[in-house]
Amino acid sequence: MESNVTPDAFGANTLLIKQLLEAGLARNPSQEIVCGDAVRFDYAELSRRIGRLAAGLASLGARPGDTIAVMDWDTHRYLECFFAVPMAGMVLHTVNVRLSVEQLLYTINHAKDDFILVNTEFLPMLEAIWDRVEPGKQLVVLSDAASPRETRLPIAAEYEALLAKSHPVNAWPDLEESARATTFYTTGTTGLPKAVHFSHRQLVLHTLASRAALSGPGAGRFNHDDVYMPVTPMFHVHAWGLPYVATMMGVKQVYPGRYVPDRLLTLFAREKVTFSHCVPTILQMILDSAAVKGQRLDGWTVVIGGAALPQSLARAAMGWGVDVFAGYGMSETGPILTLAQPRSGRSDSPSDQEVAARCHAGWAIPFVQLRVVDDAMKDQPRDGNSPGELVARSPWLTQSYLGDAQASQALWRGGWLHTGDIAVMDPDGCVRIVDRLKDVIKTGGEWVSSLQLEDILLKHPQVQEAAVIGIPDPRWSERPAAIVVLKEGVVLDADTIRSHVKTFADAGAISKFAIPQEVMFADSLPKTSVGKLDKKLMRAQQAKLVGAA
Amino acid sequence: MESNVTPDAFGANTLLIKQLLEAGLARNPSQEIVCGDAVRFDYAELSRRIGRLAAGLASLGARPGDTIAVMDWDTHRYLECFFAVPMAGMVLHTVNVRLSVEQLLYTINHAKDDFILVNTEFLPMLEAIWDRVEPGKQLVVLSDAASPRETRLPIAAEYEALLAKSHPVNAWPDLEESARATTFYTTGTTGLPKAVHFSHRQLVLHTLASRAALSGPGAGRFNHDDVYMPVTPMFHVHAWGLPYVATMMGVKQVYPGRYVPDRLLTLFAREKVTFSHCVPTILQMILDSAAVKGQRLDGWTVVIGGAALPQSLARAAMGWGVDVFAGYGMSETGPILTLAQPRSGRSDSPSDQEVAARCHAGWAIPFVQLRVVDDAMKDQPRDGNSPGELVARSPWLTQSYLGDAQASQALWRGGWLHTGDIAVMDPDGCVRIVDRLKDVIKTGGEWVSSLQLEDILLKHPQVQEAAVIGIPDPRWSERPAAIVVLKEGVVLDADTIRSHVKTFADAGAISKFAIPQEVMFADSLPKTSVGKLDKKLMRAQQAKLVGAA
Repeated sequence: MESNVTPDAFGANTLLIKQLLEAGLARNPSQEIVCGDAVRFDYAELSRRIGRLAAGLASLGARPGDTIAVMDWDTHRYLECFFAVPMAGMVLHTVNVRLSVEQLLYTINHAKDDFILVNTEFLPMLEAIWDRVEPGKQLVVLSDAASPRETRLPIAAEYEALLAKSHPVNAWPDLEESARATTFYTTGTTGLPKAVHFSHRQLVLHTLASRAALSGPGAGRFNHDDVYMPVTPMFHVHAWGLPYVATMMGVKQVYPGRYVPDRLLTLFAREKVTFSHCVPTILQMILDSAAVKGQRLDGWTVVIGGAALPQSLARAAMGWGVDVFAGYGMSETGPILTLAQPRSGRSDSPSDQEVAARCHAGWAIPFVQLRVVDDAMKDQPRDGNSPGELVARSPWLTQSYLGDAQASQALWRGGWLHTGDIAVMDPDGCVRIVDRLKDVIKTGGEWVSSLQLEDILLKHPQVQEAAVIGIPDPRWSERPAAIVVLKEGVVLDADTIRSHVKTFADAGAISKFAIPQEVMFADSLPKTSVGKLDKKLMRAQQAKLVGAA
Repeated sequence: MESNVTPDAFGANTLLIKQLLEAGLARNPSQEIVCGDAVRFDYAELSRRIGRLAAGLASLGARPGDTIAVMDWDTHRYLECFFAVPMAGMVLHTVNVRLSVEQLLYTINHAKDDFILVNTEFLPMLEAIWDRVEPGKQLVVLSDAASPRETRLPIAAEYEALLAKSHPVNAWPDLEESARATTFYTTGTTGLPKAVHFSHRQLVLHTLASRAALSGPGAGRFNHDDVYMPVTPMFHVHAWGLPYVATMMGVKQVYPGRYVPDRLLTLFAREKVTFSHCVPTILQMILDSAAVKGQRLDGWTVVIGGAALPQSLARAAMGWGVDVFAGYGMSETGPILTLAQPRSGRSDSPSDQEVAARCHAGWAIPFVQLRVVDDAMKDQPRDGNSPGELVARSPWLTQSYLGDAQASQALWRGGWLHTGDIAVMDPDGCVRIVDRLKDVIKTGGEWVSSLQLEDILLKHPQVQEAAVIGIPDPRWSERPAAIVVLKEGVVLDADTIRSHVKTFADAGAISKFAIPQEVMFADSLPKTSVGKLDKKLMRAQQAKLVGAA
């Protein structure tokens, strides 16, 4: 059969991360990269430093296929690793420095890291586990201090010295686009951390699709004249992939190091930052700091992800001038699946509806297909009122959990990636997350959203905190149980709480099956290390109580 | 070895043209598609019509792998073919209706078309060659007339009737992304037309990269709130790929049918068109028509390609309010390689430099690598002054000329696509085309640009037209010969012409080797069917003259 590919044409046909750097460099070689207060250089120098890093790692014995772990704050060095490591055919392991040391140990050994590039601030974490880290890993320290911290660990090199003595690589290998570029661990609420992974091709396509979704006129946009500052850790799903988008566009980039709200505000003002992204907690910290300083935040577009964006927080941020909106995704999805970019409305005096619209998961970005399905993978109506599990397809979703075929198959059952989130879809395609699948309570043939029920409980003026879990029930499958923390000095009985919920059930806001039979009062609610309600623990405690009864 | 791809994850991993339609449809189902004065429907209906077209073709026996030729003006039906044909796994052959009937015959037989969808206006062309068209091809006629033109050709179906009786396909095949989506013919100045071809993957990547390059704030941009109207034939390299970009964005699209300047201006005003693209000749026609009507063209961004954008035309267009700039590419490149988007400056009273900057080829779009090289593929300095051949790489360049391995190898020699254009590159990466490679005259070790020399000749107030060709010379390799058409009633001798050029050589504007020894006077210059100077014919005539001498 006739071949329609000319042999010499092959090499031009791959999608590689180096092309993202080349695009930005070609477009804007004198554009700035800023890190904190002391570092400032241009894209031409970024490109040289990336070449030096690759050469430096090679001089230490790093080879294509090796895994290079990084433990750092959001710095220019991390950005350099985002490019140099995969461009050299190695795998970047973005280590979550907020893991427990046991989890850290597990991930470093599981990833088979060959090198660990570690900010000296995180050396104590490594020292605590080093005797159980599998041998053969080399350490490169990252530090801005003149005399780095003393350590008993064997240090192979210091980052800046390594770069200084290395001649930049300038001919990068022509890799397969399916070559693995990154890996990192997602800590579910059950079991050990699981390793997701992304190829050059996947990261390039995530970059192009995010660029297509984000750019253009109006609110909620990221364009070539923006100034970018990530406020999401770079170990969190590639800082949502946006450093790659920023670099491809050739925009000015500002790296804040460790997040200190005051410093973030200083960088925002001094560097004229216009586009960032963070979790709701960080946004709240920024607003609190802005309130103390009396500093307006006009002209700052901020995407919120990682957790639901509360409407009260969105309204407060808009009050300070922030063009805020939510996005949705997860470690397994690269991460961006949807964005809730505002389509209309004023940002200076938004209606409740306009605020709410910015807090949904939003619309699928190009090349993302989303479905809301029932247990049998049947599509739910797009009526904004029929919950089901959100499942996704796109060309950049992780193809497996490394070394865990069973979890991989569960993730991908039926050929769709299962998000584990319960969503409804509006007629116009807007997605709203209503709950985590495992937090949905199946009772009397109905799905009751524990999130919605918690919201209702919190509307009671005497309730400080509330959590809802499902407890097994022979007749109803499950029934909802509420754990309530009352405001200081308040006394209330379970019937009052049930009556409160019944008002909403009577009004049709929630199923009558949602009225909790069990209402328990507590002094506080258990939380996970990232501040989420620890429902796993609550269920276990509840089971113990029930078992003991 | 452990596989890191979960079997069920496979299907989600391909780049297909259907995803472009899905993105626009998901984003904006009620957005409008307009064609001429009589047709107006929304993206939801576009999607249904695409489904009906695929089903209708299948009902006539069309199968995946078949080639479907289209002969039409720029219509909504052509847009439907852009999607339905490749989405159904068939190959779209976009027939150049401006070819001579002999070339048309060659391409239809060479492409092995299975179906020809033909606007009734082009039936006479087919009638002229039908007895030499290989048998087995089915005809579907496209017409807006109540009673289509009589023809002796066997008609299998009429397009609208076919759609009306077909139930829309709604489950599209999961094709390989390397599946061929389109093919069409490029008519070089030598030999038979050559078939280039593009896969789903290539068109998707061209779309994403063009979107990335074009969108954003400022002049020279194409965004989600624009209104799109192509004024480039859809058989010309997929109308530069921009109908795919427009559809992915979900913007309003306006199809003008056959180009009639008055109608273009009516559509522009009535439909509030903001983004178009065309060749310089069409822009000139539009400006002439605008001048007659006294109609301003403010708010219209127009990309110019297909031929160099003269500065005088750019300035005139800007005077009417058009945000005009050039792009560069060719049939083999999908087509977009570069865009000369304005980076600064006022469009209402541009300086000469600002006008000139809009007329260059411009900057590579993302994922395009460009080099300017000498005969040995050595890079020329990026100094804006060192000409060489422009060669390119990107993931969407044609991988061959179908059935012509020798030309394919020449196109791709050294792993880079050879454009055949002579360019210089500025230090900031801006590309300026200075000549066609075959039009460069190599004399005395110097490259003399025939375009530049023609420009100089045209600066003489008595010269109406001028062409420069190289004629073989045993001592100098080649030497330039000028063929000059003088203004009506003027008499001038060759020495005057030579003195005129010498002035520029003395000023350093051009090499002294450029001063033409041969200066010939003619009444007119031979031109090709698309209005370009036919230098091939001039060289042949000159050779004959020399041979006869």
